[in-house]
Amino acid sequence: MVARIPDCPLARTVGQIGQWWTLEILHETFDGHTSFAAIQENLGLPTEVLTERLAALVDTGILEPHGDQGGISRTEYLPTVLGCSLRPILLVMAAWGNHRLEPDQRSLILVDVTTGEEAEPVVVDRATGRRVDTTGYAFTAGPAASEALRARYRKR
Amino acid sequence: MVARIPDCPLARTVGQIGQWWTLEILHETFDGHTSFAAIQENLGLPTEVLTERLAALVDTGILEPHGDQGGISRTEYLPTVLGCSLRPILLVMAAWGNHRLEPDQRSLILVDVTTGEEAEPVVVDRATGRRVDTTGYAFTAGPAASEALRARYRKR
Repeated sequence: MVARIPDCPLARTVGQIGQWWTLEILHETFDGHTSFAAIQENLGLPTEVLTERLAALVDTGILEPHGDQGGISRTEYLPTVLGCSLRPILLVMAAWGNHRLEPDQRSLILVDVTTGEEAEPVVVDRATGRRVDTTGYAFTAGPAASEALRARYRKR
Repeated sequence: MVARIPDCPLARTVGQIGQWWTLEILHETFDGHTSFAAIQENLGLPTEVLTERLAALVDTGILEPHGDQGGISRTEYLPTVLGCSLRPILLVMAAWGNHRLEPDQRSLILVDVTTGEEAEPVVVDRATGRRVDTTGYAFTAGPAASEALRARYRKR
């Protein structure tokens, strides 16, 4: 699917994210660690590797550099609107990792910042609030589907 | 985070998924294309590549082979409970890809199988139904956090 059909939305997302480290660096910035120095300290990456990765994320419009006149270690990298739009993916991936563990075995948890209560991220349909990771929801050909894609869903 | 702190739930998920093709193959099986032959036709992969990937997914407990006495092209690969647990990640990634497009430009859509209505997957807190991809929710150190992880969240 991803490989053969260029209009697959999963392929589009994989293409935008590129490498897993995109999410790793975004995670830093969402957590408020936005300076080159802080990201480098947390991820333990060589300067040239981090420089290259941040430049790639700026190029693809995921991060925006701020205050770069203070030298590279003072530059802050803030997620753009596009970068922020990837946060649900990161939250669902982290939720999966935590879901394997008992609550008291978790090292990093997502909380309601007001109450401190742990959140359990689940994926629902916006309009109805129903869980979509059930047999009640399935992919099908959309309005712009190619003939090949329509055939894929007719066959079932 | 992912690189340095082994107890990061995002790292755990990335470690389990491994390569993007894990989601690509899972997508096939969720769509009902579970035979070696069907997956191969859809993804256009050489036999040896697909054989290797399916074997890896069986090894990690994501897929389970059924009916393999009929030869490799007859073998069906069904997602296990673990494999199915990755579906929300796939749905949120596909939703991101579609969200970039107008509804009539979408080739592959997630629908309510009863009504045919397109779903819009969003990530909410299970208990409250509130969107978690907002400033109202943030990561923090959990009960099992190391001192390094606690320090990371104290600093902000």
